[in-house]
Amino acid sequence: MLGMDRLGSYAVHPIAWVHSSLRQRADAPKQGREGAPDARLEIAADFVDGLDGIKAGQEIVILTWLHEADRDVLKVHPRDDLRNPLTGVFATRSADRPNPIGLHRVTVLEIVNGHWLHVQGLEAVDGTPVIDIKPVLQESRDS
Amino acid sequence: MLGMDRLGSYAVHPIAWVHSSLRQRADAPKQGREGAPDARLEIAADFVDGLDGIKAGQEIVILTWLHEADRDVLKVHPRDDLRNPLTGVFATRSADRPNPIGLHRVTVLEIVNGHWLHVQGLEAVDGTPVIDIKPVLQESRDS
Repeated sequence: MLGMDRLGSYAVHPIAWVHSSLRQRADAPKQGREGAPDARLEIAADFVDGLDGIKAGQEIVILTWLHEADRDVLKVHPRDDLRNPLTGVFATRSADRPNPIGLHRVTVLEIVNGHWLHVQGLEAVDGTPVIDIKPVLQESRDS
Repeated sequence: MLGMDRLGSYAVHPIAWVHSSLRQRADAPKQGREGAPDARLEIAADFVDGLDGIKAGQEIVILTWLHEADRDVLKVHPRDDLRNPLTGVFATRSADRPNPIGLHRVTVLEIVNGHWLHVQGLEAVDGTPVIDIKPVLQESRDS
């Protein structure tokens, strides 16, 4: 496994975009269960077939690319509270991290016209790219 | 939010690599709770500071880049079983998907020499790039 691959990178392409009343990162709650508004995901035409089988009422995990994040940050004060000691970003849910991927567990409200996915309680700002959607694994209650 | 951004892509850089006795994708269980072996993550030197605060016994979510995946697949037979009807990849945990990101919830066993993270039950093959590590949010039992 040594070699050039270790120095490489991979290209992530958006599959959808968030439409939300949240306009600025400063307005977004830290987690979806802290009062985030419902949102609509606009699925790009090329990827609509990948939605087949997702149903209203189902819990899903949405992976976003937090495009406003600072990728050079390795330590933060958790929850932006200076009273919290500096902590490695991998031990926190900070948006600022080397690969700024957001993980959001939400409930599907409805699917409209085959390419609009309405979801409950998403803490991502309007325009955030979505890079993956997965079902929650019921047997383990994880995501 | 319209415009060139919508056509763009983002570069993901590995922050670590999986060392595992699993050598081939065909040998890997579908989920970590289906008998996956323990594994060691080798954190790249540039990112070691980001681990500060992670402790043995803690549950974390590891995001991997499933580099052997087929990114052109939009529908699969779940669990590679032809008796299961073709389903959109976003409704499944298939590794084959447009952005092949794996989500693995595991328990930290120990941290060795500051840059080796030993974890319990990881269903990723040896050499898989790791792109992010996050704590499980205890209050919601999700990840």
